[in-house]
Amino acid sequence: MTITHTPETGNALWVYAHPRRESFNAHLLQAGTEALAARYRVQTSDLYAQGFDPVLSDRDLGELAAKPGNIAELAGEAYTRGELPADVRDEQAKLAAAELLVIQFPLWWYGPPAILKGWFDRVLTSGFAYGDVDDDGLPRRYGDGGLAGRRALIVVTAGEDAASIGPRGISGDIESLLFPVTHGVLWYVGIDVLDLHVVHDADSLDAAAVERETTRLRERLRTVDAEPTLPFRRLRDGDYQGTRALREDLLPGRTDLGIHSARRA
Amino acid sequence: MTITHTPETGNALWVYAHPRRESFNAHLLQAGTEALAARYRVQTSDLYAQGFDPVLSDRDLGELAAKPGNIAELAGEAYTRGELPADVRDEQAKLAAAELLVIQFPLWWYGPPAILKGWFDRVLTSGFAYGDVDDDGLPRRYGDGGLAGRRALIVVTAGEDAASIGPRGISGDIESLLFPVTHGVLWYVGIDVLDLHVVHDADSLDAAAVERETTRLRERLRTVDAEPTLPFRRLRDGDYQGTRALREDLLPGRTDLGIHSARRA
Repeated sequence: MTITHTPETGNALWVYAHPRRESFNAHLLQAGTEALAARYRVQTSDLYAQGFDPVLSDRDLGELAAKPGNIAELAGEAYTRGELPADVRDEQAKLAAAELLVIQFPLWWYGPPAILKGWFDRVLTSGFAYGDVDDDGLPRRYGDGGLAGRRALIVVTAGEDAASIGPRGISGDIESLLFPVTHGVLWYVGIDVLDLHVVHDADSLDAAAVERETTRLRERLRTVDAEPTLPFRRLRDGDYQGTRALREDLLPGRTDLGIHSARRA
Repeated sequence: MTITHTPETGNALWVYAHPRRESFNAHLLQAGTEALAARYRVQTSDLYAQGFDPVLSDRDLGELAAKPGNIAELAGEAYTRGELPADVRDEQAKLAAAELLVIQFPLWWYGPPAILKGWFDRVLTSGFAYGDVDDDGLPRRYGDGGLAGRRALIVVTAGEDAASIGPRGISGDIESLLFPVTHGVLWYVGIDVLDLHVVHDADSLDAAAVERETTRLRERLRTVDAEPTLPFRRLRDGDYQGTRALREDLLPGRTDLGIHSARRA
């Protein structure tokens, strides 16, 4: 399903990964895409409605399926040869056209639902999303690369309360739990990431809370273009030893994930 | 595909999530299941070979598919009513029978491939894996619950080198990247977790390195029953404020994921 609203400023892609039509998430999707439509032409990738197949497999490789080797490398080669499947090419085209990416999902087992994880696995191929090298021979990743110049907002609903997934929460803090997505996926391919938009207690919201959360999302989206992005360190700034570990003189002794932010760590 | 070796001591389940038959991962699977067979009856869930569907959806809910509500709660209800799909029930039966769980996968986008994430999403339903309450009214989770008494080993292959996913690595340390699996999935449902078994540079191993890594895995499996497990804190030990955040007197001021380990933090 692709919802297209009236264009105003630029293009946005809203990737949505929730199975149920009558859900709170479906309500937020509707409100959020409408709110963005004031300034963006909004396309929606409703992964469940599309029946998106999240399983990266030999079926992604075209004629290269018979070739031995690493599947991620072969998918990159298939991209270059124009042999990726149509569903992957459609998603790549939507993403390539978007200046703003919104990714909305319920937190399942402290991460994205499989259908969304597989969207990353299949759509963000080498060649399309990463793999270039800069003039100094460094890979263009972590703050640079195939999708640089875009911004991303994650909208995540969690059954748990703010304390449970807060800084010392029993389940781990949500920023660390989603670091593989914010830093490992989005920042890796050059996309600037906004602060998470988290809805807590999402399974037990009454009507007033739904209204409050809907308004909060609308307000967030109204000013999202002016927001600062997360200060993850850029590979090209030299904070790392080549492509390996953080320089010893920076935040010496620390090993927490916060070291990968240059400010507000 | 289910490989069954000769029984000796107990039952092991090896969950395997790699698409390619001629891969290094396939080689490790073969060597690993053979090594375990000296002491265990080993069943294998080869998710790609099985064509496992990782997408939790209304199809999981039997007659409850028409009912509104949270899909995870409804899947738990479907479990109780015996209405989960046959493929999910098969996986639950294999897991219920196993004392040792091995989960082997390549690191894709700093997490498990979608087909494995969906195995968690679909198989670990309420009722089966979690949802009980103890005598004090606390949920039986984080070190207790439906699957307590089992041990799990994660075998993960990474394209990156040891520095890149080490303690100050540019991609984040692998223990934090996989915390949503080790702590968020396995420990949550009561499974004791062993230190990660990580193979670095997995896309560029020469024959000697493959042999070395194969031997290292065999040796690891030979002594795995005697290994200490990760010292994640147990909910029932009172380190948390109910089900919420770590008590303020424990490791005050710290907010890194290491606070959830009671020793070696």
